[in-house]
Amino acid sequence: MTATRPADLAGAARGFAAAELTDHRYFDGLPEPPMPQQARLADAGLANWWMPVEYGGPGVSLREGVDIVSELSYGDAGFAFTSYLSILATTMVHLYGEDEVRKPLLTDFAGSGGVCATLASEDAAGSELGRTETTSTRRGGAVIITGDKYFSTNTDLAEFLVVVTRSAESDQDFRAVVVPRDAPGIKVVRRWDVLGMRGSATYEVRLRNVRVPASHVLRGNGIRVLEAGLNASRVLIATTSIGLSRRVRDEAMSYAATKTIKGERLTANNVFAAKLGEIEMQIDLMLNQCRAAAAEFDAIMARPDAADEFLRVGSTRSALAAKMACGQLGWAVASTGSQLFGGLGYTNDHIIGKLTRDLRWTALVEGGEDVMRDLLYSRYVLPGDRRR
Amino acid sequence: MTATRPADLAGAARGFAAAELTDHRYFDGLPEPPMPQQARLADAGLANWWMPVEYGGPGVSLREGVDIVSELSYGDAGFAFTSYLSILATTMVHLYGEDEVRKPLLTDFAGSGGVCATLASEDAAGSELGRTETTSTRRGGAVIITGDKYFSTNTDLAEFLVVVTRSAESDQDFRAVVVPRDAPGIKVVRRWDVLGMRGSATYEVRLRNVRVPASHVLRGNGIRVLEAGLNASRVLIATTSIGLSRRVRDEAMSYAATKTIKGERLTANNVFAAKLGEIEMQIDLMLNQCRAAAAEFDAIMARPDAADEFLRVGSTRSALAAKMACGQLGWAVASTGSQLFGGLGYTNDHIIGKLTRDLRWTALVEGGEDVMRDLLYSRYVLPGDRRR
Amino acid sequence: MTATRPADLAGAARGFAAAELTDHRYFDGLPEPPMPQQARLADAGLANWWMPVEYGGPGVSLREGVDIVSELSYGDAGFAFTSYLSILATTMVHLYGEDEVRKPLLTDFAGSGGVCATLASEDAAGSELGRTETTSTRRGGAVIITGDKYFSTNTDLAEFLVVVTRSAESDQDFRAVVVPRDAPGIKVVRRWDVLGMRGSATYEVRLRNVRVPASHVLRGNGIRVLEAGLNASRVLIATTSIGLSRRVRDEAMSYAATKTIKGERLTANNVFAAKLGEIEMQIDLMLNQCRAAAAEFDAIMARPDAADEFLRVGSTRSALAAKMACGQLGWAVASTGSQLFGGLGYTNDHIIGKLTRDLRWTALVEGGEDVMRDLLYSRYVLPGDRRR
Amino acid sequence: MTATRPADLAGAARGFAAAELTDHRYFDGLPEPPMPQQARLADAGLANWWMPVEYGGPGVSLREGVDIVSELSYGDAGFAFTSYLSILATTMVHLYGEDEVRKPLLTDFAGSGGVCATLASEDAAGSELGRTETTSTRRGGAVIITGDKYFSTNTDLAEFLVVVTRSAESDQDFRAVVVPRDAPGIKVVRRWDVLGMRGSATYEVRLRNVRVPASHVLRGNGIRVLEAGLNASRVLIATTSIGLSRRVRDEAMSYAATKTIKGERLTANNVFAAKLGEIEMQIDLMLNQCRAAAAEFDAIMARPDAADEFLRVGSTRSALAAKMACGQLGWAVASTGSQLFGGLGYTNDHIIGKLTRDLRWTALVEGGEDVMRDLLYSRYVLPGDRRR
Repeated sequence: MTATRPADLAGAARGFAAAELTDHRYFDGLPEPPMPQQARLADAGLANWWMPVEYGGPGVSLREGVDIVSELSYGDAGFAFTSYLSILATTMVHLYGEDEVRKPLLTDFAGSGGVCATLASEDAAGSELGRTETTSTRRGGAVIITGDKYFSTNTDLAEFLVVVTRSAESDQDFRAVVVPRDAPGIKVVRRWDVLGMRGSATYEVRLRNVRVPASHVLRGNGIRVLEAGLNASRVLIATTSIGLSRRVRDEAMSYAATKTIKGERLTANNVFAAKLGEIEMQIDLMLNQCRAAAAEFDAIMARPDAADEFLRVGSTRSALAAKMACGQLGWAVASTGSQLFGGLGYTNDHIIGKLTRDLRWTALVEGGEDVMRDLLYSRYVLPGDRRR
Repeated sequence: MTATRPADLAGAARGFAAAELTDHRYFDGLPEPPMPQQARLADAGLANWWMPVEYGGPGVSLREGVDIVSELSYGDAGFAFTSYLSILATTMVHLYGEDEVRKPLLTDFAGSGGVCATLASEDAAGSELGRTETTSTRRGGAVIITGDKYFSTNTDLAEFLVVVTRSAESDQDFRAVVVPRDAPGIKVVRRWDVLGMRGSATYEVRLRNVRVPASHVLRGNGIRVLEAGLNASRVLIATTSIGLSRRVRDEAMSYAATKTIKGERLTANNVFAAKLGEIEMQIDLMLNQCRAAAAEFDAIMARPDAADEFLRVGSTRSALAAKMACGQLGWAVASTGSQLFGGLGYTNDHIIGKLTRDLRWTALVEGGEDVMRDLLYSRYVLPGDRRR
Repeated sequence: MTATRPADLAGAARGFAAAELTDHRYFDGLPEPPMPQQARLADAGLANWWMPVEYGGPGVSLREGVDIVSELSYGDAGFAFTSYLSILATTMVHLYGEDEVRKPLLTDFAGSGGVCATLASEDAAGSELGRTETTSTRRGGAVIITGDKYFSTNTDLAEFLVVVTRSAESDQDFRAVVVPRDAPGIKVVRRWDVLGMRGSATYEVRLRNVRVPASHVLRGNGIRVLEAGLNASRVLIATTSIGLSRRVRDEAMSYAATKTIKGERLTANNVFAAKLGEIEMQIDLMLNQCRAAAAEFDAIMARPDAADEFLRVGSTRSALAAKMACGQLGWAVASTGSQLFGGLGYTNDHIIGKLTRDLRWTALVEGGEDVMRDLLYSRYVLPGDRRR
Repeated sequence: MTATRPADLAGAARGFAAAELTDHRYFDGLPEPPMPQQARLADAGLANWWMPVEYGGPGVSLREGVDIVSELSYGDAGFAFTSYLSILATTMVHLYGEDEVRKPLLTDFAGSGGVCATLASEDAAGSELGRTETTSTRRGGAVIITGDKYFSTNTDLAEFLVVVTRSAESDQDFRAVVVPRDAPGIKVVRRWDVLGMRGSATYEVRLRNVRVPASHVLRGNGIRVLEAGLNASRVLIATTSIGLSRRVRDEAMSYAATKTIKGERLTANNVFAAKLGEIEMQIDLMLNQCRAAAAEFDAIMARPDAADEFLRVGSTRSALAAKMACGQLGWAVASTGSQLFGGLGYTNDHIIGKLTRDLRWTALVEGGEDVMRDLLYSRYVLPGDRRR
C-alpha cells in the first residue's frame, strides 16, 4: 500500500466524503463493483485502515475507525459498508489463521486496497449459526466445502473468502475456513436487490466441493471465531447509523433554514428545536457507545492472548449493545427525520427517503434485535458473575 | 352508474383486492393513470361509493367505507387512495356548492366512475393553509385564479377540481372554487416520484388566470370548507394503515409458517407471538378509532344543518385523532414488521419494503403529526368547554 | 334498590365525582371499607348499574357504563374500581348460575348496593389460570373448596364470592363456584398495601374445606366462565385509564394557566401544546376502543345464546385489546404527564404522583401485557379463520 | 479527612451499599438528616471523593465517581444523591471563588465529610434560570441577598451555600454567591415531601437581607458559573439511573429464579429473556454515556484554563445528553421493570415500586427534558460550527 496514512483520519474521511460521495443517486442505483471511489479511497490512504502493521497495514485502531466510518457513512453508508466489512474476515484470519496462510494472505491483502468476504448466513438457519448446513469434510490434507450461503457482501470481487461450515465429522463442531475466491466450485448465484445500502453489493453464493488445504482451517470453534470478528464489524455497522443520523440532522437544518412556520424561521420553532435536540442526544449516545465498544475491542486485541480471550468471551457486551442500540436509535432518528421535510420528504426529490432506507439496515444485518437480546441475556445477564 | 351495489361491500372489496390488486410490482412502478383496475372497480360497483343517492350514487356511509378501504388497501394502498380521495372534493361541493353547479356536476360525477381532485397544499405554505398564496379575484360575474399548487393527487385525469384560494379582495378571506379540469390556464407541471403509495399519482400544478363563473365559488370560508371535506378523507387515509397493517400481519404469518427457530416452528415462538399479539392490538385500536370517526362524520352529515355544523366544528376531534393515531400505529407496525423477515425483509424479493414505504405516508399526508397535535390542542384542549 | 336511575348517567357520575371524590389524600390512604361514599353512590342510583332488570337492577349497558366509569375514575380510580368490579362475579353468575342460586342471589345483590368478589389469582400460578391449585372436591351433594388466593378485591365485605377452582376429580377440569362470604373456612389473611388504586381494597384469602351445595357450581369450564366475566371487567379496567388521563390533562391545563415560559403563558407554548395534543389523541383512542369493546360485549349479551357464545368465544378480541391498549396509552400519558409540572410534580403537594401510580395499574391487573399478547395471538392471529 | 481512600473505590462503594444501604423502608421514609450512614460513608473514605488534593481531598476523577455513584445508587439512590450533590457547589467555588474564600472554605469542607448546597431554582422561574428573581445588591463591601428558593437539597445541614442571584444593579447580570449556612436571614421554610429519592432532603428556603462580604461573589456570570458545576452534578444524576436500573435487573433475576411459567423456569422464558436483554443494552448505553461525559468534564478540569473554558462552553454536550438519555432510558427500565413482578410488583411488599419512583427523578431534576433539548439544540445544533 503506497498511500500515505493521513494524520487526521476522520478529517480525511470527511473530506473524501465531501469530494467523492455526493452523488447519492449513483450509490442508490446498485452500482456495479468495483466502484471507482474504492480505488480513490485506497489512494487517499483510507482503505483497510485496520490492517495490522505486521502485514504492512496502517494499524489504525477500531476506536479511530469509528470516526472514519461515521464520516464515510455521512456521505454514503453503502459505500462505507463496502469499505469496512473486510475487517470481519481479516480479524478472523489474523487471530486464528495458521502462520503459513495468515502471513502471506494478509500481507497481500493489506497492499491491495481490495475487499474480502465472509460467508456465514444461510436461508434456513437465518441468524442461528448453530444450524449452519454448509459442511466441511476432511479428506486427507484437504477440506471440502459444500453448501449454500444466503447473504454475503463483497463476495464477487473478494481477494479471499472465509466460510463458516459445520464439520461433517462432528455435528457440534464448526470450522471457519479460508477459501481463495477463484477456487473451483464457487458460484455467485445472484446479487440481491436490497432496500437500502445499495452502494454495497450482497450476494447469494453456492459452494460445491470446494477444496482447500487443511491449513486453511482457522483454529478454534468456527462460530466463536466468527463472533470474534463480528465484534469489530458490528461496532462499525452500529457506527453507520451515526453517520446517517448526522446527515439527517444536517439535512433538516438546511431545509429549516429555507422555511418559515407561524411567521418565524423554522429553525426558531420550539417544536422543531425539540426534535433536533432529541436527535442530537441520540447521536451523542450512539457515538459514545460505539467508541466504548471499539475501545473494548482494541483492549482485547492488544493483549498477547487476544485470540484465546476472544474464544472465551465470544461477543463482547459492548459490541452487542452498540449494534442493538444504534439499530434502535438510528431508526428513531429516521422515524422523526422522515417527517421533518413535509410532503417533499415523501418524494425522491429529497435524500431523506434514501437515508431512511439505509437506517433500517443496522438493526437487521449480522443478527437482528432478537439475536442481540438473546446474546446479551444468555451471556451477560443469566450468568450472575458476568453481571455488572 | 350501471354497476349494481354489492350487498356485502367489504367482502366485495376483499374479493376485488384478491383478484385485481395482486401485482405489487405494477402498482409500485408509478403506473400511468388511468389504471385499468379503476374501470374494473367501477364495474364492481365499488367506485365512489360515498356519492349521495340524490346524485344517483350508492350513498354508502363513511362507516361502511372504512371497511371497503381497509380491504382495498390490503391489496394496494396507492390504488385504494386513488379510489377514495375524490371524497374530499365531492364532500365540499355537496355541502357548499350552489345548486346550479352542485347538482349537474355531482350527478355527472356519480355516473362516471372517475376521479376529481382538490388543490390545496403549496410549497411555501406547507400545511399552514392560512398562508395560501394562490389568489382568486372577482371580476364581474367571474373569479380568476392564479397560483401554484404543490401536491395534488388525481389532478391530471380529474373530472373537476376544487381549488383553495386566498381572496384577492380580503387577506383573511379564503375561497374554495370549483374549476373544470379543461379550463384554460391549468398546467400540470410534473408528476411526483414518491417513496410509496406509488399506485397513486400526485402532481404539481400551475394555475394562471383560470376563469370560472362566480357561481363556482363554494359557500363559506374556504379553509373551513376544506376542513369539512378533510374529515372524510383523513379518516380514509387513516384507514389505509389498517389494510396495510393487516397485510403485514398476514405476510408475517405466511413467512413464519415456513421457518423454524430454536427447534420449533416460528409461529410457536413466544417472542414472535408477542410481536404479532401487539400488532393485532394495534390493528384493533386503529379499526375502532376509524369506525368511530367515520360514525361521527356520518352523524353530522345526516343532520339537516350539516353544512353549517361543519363550518362551526371544522375538523372533528375523532378524524384528527384517527389520522394521527393511525400514522403512529401503522408506523409502529412497519417498524416491527420490517424486522420480522430476517435479511430477506431487506430485499425487494419481499413485499415488506413496499409496505413499510406505504405505511410512512399516513402520518405525512393532509397535515403532518405536528399539525394534528396543534389542531387537537387549539380546538379541543385549550377551550375548556370542548374538553371531554 | 330504591334509588332512581338518573337519565344522564355520565353527567350524574361526573357530578358525584365532583361532589364526593375530591379528597384524594383520603382515597390514597387505604381507607377502611366500606367507604361512606359507597353508600352515597348507591343513593345516587350509580351503584351496580349493570345489574339486569330481571333482578330489579337498572340494566344499564356496558357501553353506557364506560362513560360512568370514566367519570368516576376522573375523581378517584380506586373508588371507581371498588364500584364496578362486582360486574365480574355477577356476570358469571348471571350467565352460568343455576336458577335456584342465581335468581335469589342476584336479586338480593341488586337491591343491596353492595359488592361481591371473585377469587381467581394465586401466588404460584400468577396469570396462568390453568395452573390454579385451589381445588374443589365433590362430596355427595356438596363441593368442598381448599386453596389460597393471592389477590382478590372487595372480598372482605362481599355479599358473595365466586371462586375459581381446579376439579379434584379431573386435572383439566375447572369449576367456578359461588360461595357465601360467611361460609366457614374462609379467612382473609391480609389486605395488600398497594402502590396505587388505594381507594380499593385487595386481599389475600385462605379457603380451607369450604363447603357449598353442588348447585353453587357454575355451568361450563370454570376458566371459560371466568373469561366471560373478564370481558366486562377488563373493559372497565381499561376505562379507568381514560378517566385518569382526562384528569392528567385537566390538571396540566390548570397548572399551565398559572405559569409563564419564555415570556408567554405556558398554555401558549408550542411544545406544551404538542404534548397536550398528543394526550388528547391518546384519550380519544382509548375511549373509542373501550366503547367498541363494550358494544361487542353488549351485543353478545343480547343474544339468546349469550352464555354458550361466551363459552365458545372466551375472551373477546376487543376487550383484550382495550385492556392492553389502555395499559400502554395510560402509561404514556403518565410518562408525559408526570413531567409537566416541573419539580412540583415530584412532590406530594401535587396529585400527579398519585395519578401516575394509579395509571401503572391497568397494565398489571387481570392479566399483564404478556398475557394479553399471548391471548390475542393464540386466539385471533394464529387461527387464520379468526383473523380480520 | 482521616479516612484512607480505598484502592478499589467502586468495590468499596459496592461493599458499603451491601452493608449499609439495605433497609429500603428506612430510606423511603424521609429520614431526618444527617442519616447515620453519612458519617459511616466518610469513615469508609467515600465521602466527597471529588474534592481536589489541594484542599486535602482525595481528588478522585468524575470518571471514577461514576462507578462509585452507580454502586451507591444500587443500594439507595436518595442516599447516593445526598452524598454527591455537594459537587455542584464545590465545583463552582473551586473554579470561580476568590482565593481568600475558596481555600479555607474548601479545605474545611474536604475535612468535614459533610454537605453543602446550591440554591438556584425558584417557583416562578422554574428551569429558566434567566428569570431568577432572587436579587443580590452591592452595598459597600458587601452584597445583600433577598429572595425565595424553591427546591434546594441538603440545605438545612449544609456547611455552606451557593446562591444564584440576579444583580440588582443590572438586569442581565447574575451572581453566584457563597453564603455561610448560619448567615442571618436564611430560613428553611419546609422540607418537601417527595415521590421518590426520599433518602435525600430537599427544602424550600427563604432569604431576607442576607449579607456577605463582596469577596463571596464568584467570578463570572452566575448562570454560566452554575452551568459549570451542573456539568458534574448532571452526570452523577444521570448515573443514578444506572445503579437503579442494575438493581431492577437483579431484582428481576432473583424473582424469576423462583417462578415458573408455561412449565419452565421464568429465567428460561424467551419473552422474559428479551426484556432483560433489552435492559442490559440500556444499562450499557447509560454507562458508556456517563463515563464519556465524565471524561469530558475531567479533561476540561485538567486544563490550566478550566474556569475560563467552562465559561465559554457552558453546559457540555455530553453532560446534557447523559442526563436526558438516562432520564429516558432509566424510565424505560422502570416501565418494563414495574411489570416484571406480576401483581406483587404493585404492592409495597416489593421494592420495585420504590425503584420506579426513584427512576422518575432523573428526568425531572436540574432541568427537565425540554430544557435539555433546548440547550442541545441552541448550543450544539443551531450553531453549525459546533456540530459534529
